[in-house]
Amino acid sequence: SKEEEEDFIKNNYVARTLLNEPQLPPVTWSNWYKHVNWPQATLLCLEPFVALYGLFTTAFMWQTVVFTIIWYFLTGFGITAGYHRLFAHRSYEAKTPLKYLLLVLAAGSVQGSAQWWARGHRAHHRYTDTDLDPYSAHKGIFYSHIGWLIFKPRRKPGVADITDLSRDKTVQWQHRHYLTLAFFMAFVFPTLLCGLLWGDYRGGYFFAGVLRLVFVHHSTFCVNSLAHYLGDAPFDDRHTPRDHFITALVTLGEGYHNFHHEFPSDYRNALKWFQYDPTKNLIQFFKRIGLASNLKEFPQNEIQKGRYTMVRKALNQFGRTITWPKGDEELPLISYEEYQDLAKKDDGRVLVLIAGFIHDVSNFIDSHPGGRALIRSYVGKDATVAFYGGVHDHNTAAHNMLAMMRVAVCRYGGEVEHLKRKLGHIQTPTPIFA
Amino acid sequence: SKEEEEDFIKNNYVARTLLNEPQLPPVTWSNWYKHVNWPQATLLCLEPFVALYGLFTTAFMWQTVVFTIIWYFLTGFGITAGYHRLFAHRSYEAKTPLKYLLLVLAAGSVQGSAQWWARGHRAHHRYTDTDLDPYSAHKGIFYSHIGWLIFKPRRKPGVADITDLSRDKTVQWQHRHYLTLAFFMAFVFPTLLCGLLWGDYRGGYFFAGVLRLVFVHHSTFCVNSLAHYLGDAPFDDRHTPRDHFITALVTLGEGYHNFHHEFPSDYRNALKWFQYDPTKNLIQFFKRIGLASNLKEFPQNEIQKGRYTMVRKALNQFGRTITWPKGDEELPLISYEEYQDLAKKDDGRVLVLIAGFIHDVSNFIDSHPGGRALIRSYVGKDATVAFYGGVHDHNTAAHNMLAMMRVAVCRYGGEVEHLKRKLGHIQTPTPIFA
Ligand code: HEM
Ligand code: HEM
Ligand SMILES: [Fe+2]
Ligand SMILES: [Fe+2]
Ligand SMILES: [Fe+2]
Ligand SMILES: [Fe+2]
Repeated sequence: SKEEEEDFIKNNYVARTLLNEPQLPPVTWSNWYKHVNWPQATLLCLEPFVALYGLFTTAFMWQTVVFTIIWYFLTGFGITAGYHRLFAHRSYEAKTPLKYLLLVLAAGSVQGSAQWWARGHRAHHRYTDTDLDPYSAHKGIFYSHIGWLIFKPRRKPGVADITDLSRDKTVQWQHRHYLTLAFFMAFVFPTLLCGLLWGDYRGGYFFAGVLRLVFVHHSTFCVNSLAHYLGDAPFDDRHTPRDHFITALVTLGEGYHNFHHEFPSDYRNALKWFQYDPTKNLIQFFKRIGLASNLKEFPQNEIQKGRYTMVRKALNQFGRTITWPKGDEELPLISYEEYQDLAKKDDGRVLVLIAGFIHDVSNFIDSHPGGRALIRSYVGKDATVAFYGGVHDHNTAAHNMLAMMRVAVCRYGGEVEHLKRKLGHIQTPTPIFA
Repeated sequence: SKEEEEDFIKNNYVARTLLNEPQLPPVTWSNWYKHVNWPQATLLCLEPFVALYGLFTTAFMWQTVVFTIIWYFLTGFGITAGYHRLFAHRSYEAKTPLKYLLLVLAAGSVQGSAQWWARGHRAHHRYTDTDLDPYSAHKGIFYSHIGWLIFKPRRKPGVADITDLSRDKTVQWQHRHYLTLAFFMAFVFPTLLCGLLWGDYRGGYFFAGVLRLVFVHHSTFCVNSLAHYLGDAPFDDRHTPRDHFITALVTLGEGYHNFHHEFPSDYRNALKWFQYDPTKNLIQFFKRIGLASNLKEFPQNEIQKGRYTMVRKALNQFGRTITWPKGDEELPLISYEEYQDLAKKDDGRVLVLIAGFIHDVSNFIDSHPGGRALIRSYVGKDATVAFYGGVHDHNTAAHNMLAMMRVAVCRYGGEVEHLKRKLGHIQTPTPIFA
């Protein structure tokens, strides 16, 4: 009702904010150029072309190739182990030197300061899939990958608390010197290193600098795009995050994103040994050498509950594709004498009483593995004992099949409970759908 | 009770028979030689040695090697498509020429006549895992593989109806001429064929004859041994039959044995395209060329029920490893005023009311991702609206975790149902364990 809706909006931060806060008009083909964030757009759109130009015009030196890969991992880990798991989620504690190291490396990934990054990311977790999520997956894969950086945001992201970060000296230091640090770590350092050590200034700039940056950028972007589309939801499916090995592979282990959104304070993304999460291993290494402590793990019991709930949901869905037998309430109730009379009628039906239900076995009797005659001899009688082991201890499939032939319930006093007890391994089963 | 037990035995064919029918004494280290079935034991124990002798003393001719493999498949299919799926289970109908073909090929596998084989096999299905099963898996893997053939049976197998087979002329013809047919197809024919066509009498005898026979024998035996031990039970686990790819591989597709025992009248053993069941494909081929008809399939709905039941069972087992939250009945009921008083006490507990339950969040508040302050501000108040989206729309893990902190139920009039309704994608969830 209208009143309930108003009440909901009043009592829901997201609904209330979306309704009351202003937003910019949608980006369209005719107005897009007014809404472009030109500095970011230029950087992000040009860098692949610069990288391509470099690729086609620069000779490969194996030392530079190796360093490019190393630099990709190091600056990437700055984001995953630093910005993401340490600063945005506080999933472990780090000694000051480690914080500086991660902040400096992450600057080389050119993704803004830790403070800016974590603020947006906290909003992403707090308002996942709503319009207060700065990179909501509901706005399409292009938008969540890179569109949200190329265009000015239509709304302020939802509030998120970053008082811990504004009190953190290391984060503030990086925030102040971000531009210098980023420029130095992204371009100057790799160029100088390759130049001074093995004379490959050009390769250092184009490969370890620009090309590597393209990869690091799109690797991180994939956490917002791919990780919200590809794969399955073993822990919760209320929102878009998904688990997938491919996403993990291209994001240094951030690809078990369904787990991560469900348990964001856990320093791990992957739990199983065969899942790829090198960032987790790195954090464990930091701990072993005394630079990290208090690695947070969500209680295993609650993680299992997520799994349980999702399997139960899938099973329920599966169950709905199955036709189940009719229960007592859907069937007419008749007396044993009525059953005997009906069984005598020559109306094409073949009626057999088993375990309180009367079954019409006319469509089945000819294909009965135990033969036609055995069933025939029980028409109009109670075949419970015979069916439950007196003649043959039928398997579960036979019980299930039998239940589908129910046509009535018989009001009678037969007590067969004792037959359902075990006696050694000669076990008379309880029909699953009694 | 004693009475119930007697009643059970009276009403259960297997229990009754085991009690009343005589059995031979168990085979032991001191009496075993009296109980050996010497003809069968001699054949089965000698053949591997004859085969080994042949292997080390006979030159390989590629034609003989190829024919040996072909002959293994042909005589093997005689058993799987013939003895087993056609004669024992009547899972399809075959034209007379096909019946003769299968009976003659199967004779080359030296496993007794179709009538003898099917009679024992029907008892195996009807009395699976009991002492009336001629190769009960409960007697150990050696017994069910080959022991039951080497020693005289301790008991008569349980009754099984084979009137259809005693009326079948083709089966009776094979039964009468079984020894001649077996000797001819197992040894004479392969020897002559390899000898007359490419001069390799010796190879024909040792490889296509004896060595092949060893493989065919143990292949079939594996259906009674391996198929009752190795693998899992996707359809029913009351009895020992199991599904496994390896068993399928060594038995021409008879390795999906859990399925087969549950749905013995189905001409298939494997349902999925990636499962190995060449016997099924052969029967389909027979149908395509007009030699077979009426291929029986168990209703898909009942097959799915088997799957559903086993998954549900596994899920229930999984559920029992999880600690679930306390429900209403396990918690004290207090008034809102009492709650307010308790919350004011300085007893180390931090009490917050959410969705009708009072929670002690003292162990959690410091690691709350939303911070200590937000929870603090709701102590002694009703935080339902805040928790359900008023401040933050908590994820499912948060709801599960919250439920574990329940310490009491609050008698109060707060109505939050309307918050659980959906409004667009801003969805306030119902806690799964409300
Ligand atoms: C009326 C509904 C019945 C249904 C739906 C039914 C169904 C089945 C099914 C599916 C099988 C094969 C699976 C298994 O071995 O457990 C079977 C076998 C058998 N049934 Fe029934 N049955 C019915 C009634 C009876 C009755 C009343 C008797 C005995 C008086 C009987 C005697 C047997 C015997 C002896 C076998 C074993 C056949 C063999 O493996 O040689 N059945 N039945
Ligand atoms: C008392 C029991 C509570 C428990 C067990 C709890 C649990 C959690 C958990 C597990 C999260 C992280 C997962 C998620 O984002 O949904 C979270 C986040 C949050 N909670 Fe709570 N919460 C509680 C109470 C509250 C209350 C009363 C408030 C508000 C008044 C609140 C506000 C928040 C906020 C704002 C976040 C988002 C933090 C962020 O992502 O930046 N929580 N809570
Ligand atoms: Fe995400
Ligand atoms: Fe995150
Ligand atoms: Fe079996
Ligand atoms: Fe069988």
